[in-house]
Amino acid sequence: MAVYTEVPDEELEAFVARYDIGRPVSCKGIAEGVENSNFLLTTERASFILTLYEKRVRREDLPFFIGLMEHLAARGIACPTPVKARDGEALGELCKRPAAIVTFLDGMWPRRPLARHCQLLGTALAQMHLAGTDYSLRRANDLSVVGWRRLYEATKDRADEVSPGLAEEIRCEIEGFEAHWPKHLPAGVIHADLFPDNVFFLGDRLSGIIDFYFACNDAYAYDLAVCLNAWCFETDGSFNVTKARMLIAAYRKTRAVSKEELDALPMLARGSALRFLLTRLYDWLNHPPGAFVKPKDPREYLDKLRFHAGLRGPGAYGLEP
Amino acid sequence: MAVYTEVPDEELEAFVARYDIGRPVSCKGIAEGVENSNFLLTTERASFILTLYEKRVRREDLPFFIGLMEHLAARGIACPTPVKARDGEALGELCKRPAAIVTFLDGMWPRRPLARHCQLLGTALAQMHLAGTDYSLRRANDLSVVGWRRLYEATKDRADEVSPGLAEEIRCEIEGFEAHWPKHLPAGVIHADLFPDNVFFLGDRLSGIIDFYFACNDAYAYDLAVCLNAWCFETDGSFNVTKARMLIAAYRKTRAVSKEELDALPMLARGSALRFLLTRLYDWLNHPPGAFVKPKDPREYLDKLRFHAGLRGPGAYGLEP
Repeated sequence: MAVYTEVPDEELEAFVARYDIGRPVSCKGIAEGVENSNFLLTTERASFILTLYEKRVRREDLPFFIGLMEHLAARGIACPTPVKARDGEALGELCKRPAAIVTFLDGMWPRRPLARHCQLLGTALAQMHLAGTDYSLRRANDLSVVGWRRLYEATKDRADEVSPGLAEEIRCEIEGFEAHWPKHLPAGVIHADLFPDNVFFLGDRLSGIIDFYFACNDAYAYDLAVCLNAWCFETDGSFNVTKARMLIAAYRKTRAVSKEELDALPMLARGSALRFLLTRLYDWLNHPPGAFVKPKDPREYLDKLRFHAGLRGPGAYGLEP
Repeated sequence: MAVYTEVPDEELEAFVARYDIGRPVSCKGIAEGVENSNFLLTTERASFILTLYEKRVRREDLPFFIGLMEHLAARGIACPTPVKARDGEALGELCKRPAAIVTFLDGMWPRRPLARHCQLLGTALAQMHLAGTDYSLRRANDLSVVGWRRLYEATKDRADEVSPGLAEEIRCEIEGFEAHWPKHLPAGVIHADLFPDNVFFLGDRLSGIIDFYFACNDAYAYDLAVCLNAWCFETDGSFNVTKARMLIAAYRKTRAVSKEELDALPMLARGSALRFLLTRLYDWLNHPPGAFVKPKDPREYLDKLRFHAGLRGPGAYGLEP
């Protein structure tokens, strides 16, 4: 749930008047996106999402994110399209925050993803990777190995409150990744946070991918690894190999995946699990006690990390050789 | 901000299929209404608000609230109209909670109400009172004097943490109200919670009144008193007599107000201030420390109570005799 900023109606009117989209007739804060304030803005002509970028998003990264959505949408990817104001700018300022209006996407995110969703996701992920190949801006993945070390330092003193021995386990994992993390896999623009709540479906089609605010340049296979973690485990912690197989098979039909990439998947999935374990651990240890929004349990990702760490190879993901 | 319940897509599809409104194409939790979970539901045909009633709303009160919206909407009041399912029922069940779909109202609530808003509000309030006169269901105001005593008992031990001497001041107020609260004023269905975030405007018209979940049978003038408190004080605590005069004058043009009602206004406004002081005080003392949603400061309503307590008569509200 995220509405950190109240937008006075006069300021909204003035902001929307900079665009050629008609006058606002409704504007409601919505419970979507954790980092920013999001509003469902309806004008005389259509519906849009108005986003105010709060301080957790770095201002200097916004041109990368906005430009990426423009780039992908222009290539037919179902993602929000930033709307340009009359002066040609897609990024404005509202209530002293950077702000943008993007097109509204129909669809709903699946609360209980099915194998069919994973299949549609695989195709869309590969299409997105291909569509991003000629995007000119770059952004490093600040939540890869170097970032994990930083998060480890910020959490190690209290990590064992969450699970005994956790700090030491994380330290060992990071040492392993620092020594063995694959550095030469095919890379390009990845989403890096493609959880079910960022993917909309309508009937039997995938209707939209949203929330590009962790997008960066990194190995394509790492995006697949994030999806394995976010889509292919059941709520009881079991790994659904059917979902994994359908996700990866659909991906490979659109973008060829090398043997090197496939072999790296267990390591990448293990690293991706550590990334979400660390950010959840940080939020868990740093949220005010009794906070209204309870942070997600980091242990879910500790279990996932251990699952991938115990695999002998990518065959466990249901891959056909 | 209020989304307490996640609605799985299959359950939503099944629920919406009971209505003749087309299939859902989007459903987003919105930050509106404190007591319930609200979603902006868009179907192939139109937009709606889907409400799941959480435990703070009593199930046995729902027929009164739903029926009232139907009744008022049928008489031309701009309020949400409950949509009936094919079986004729406006109240269903979703995710084990009572749930209803109502029509969507265009407009935005004024973050900084102006005198013109107060004028439009006065007319709409009077129209709503008149439209409710032949509504057959009844609901007592459980947040009137008896309820204040109950809230006082629940907060008195810690009230002085908020302001020294507060418990004793509240006790004296309640004793006064128990002895002098007017009981024979013209009464009927009132909204009882008509704050700016429950009133939508679009251009120069009032486009909607929402959130009838405190509606009850009580003195009409008490509703005016609630509005005096909620609309006519500036953020610095000063009372804007122009706004009060325009509110009351517009109301009187549509519904005649007796001298008895006018004379009772300072007492009613003082009581209304106590009502919001008490519920805010209760929430203030009972919210978890460091909660994400900070409760509203009860002292704002202590100041308003004292303002009305110091008046000699209703002339202070800018009334023409």
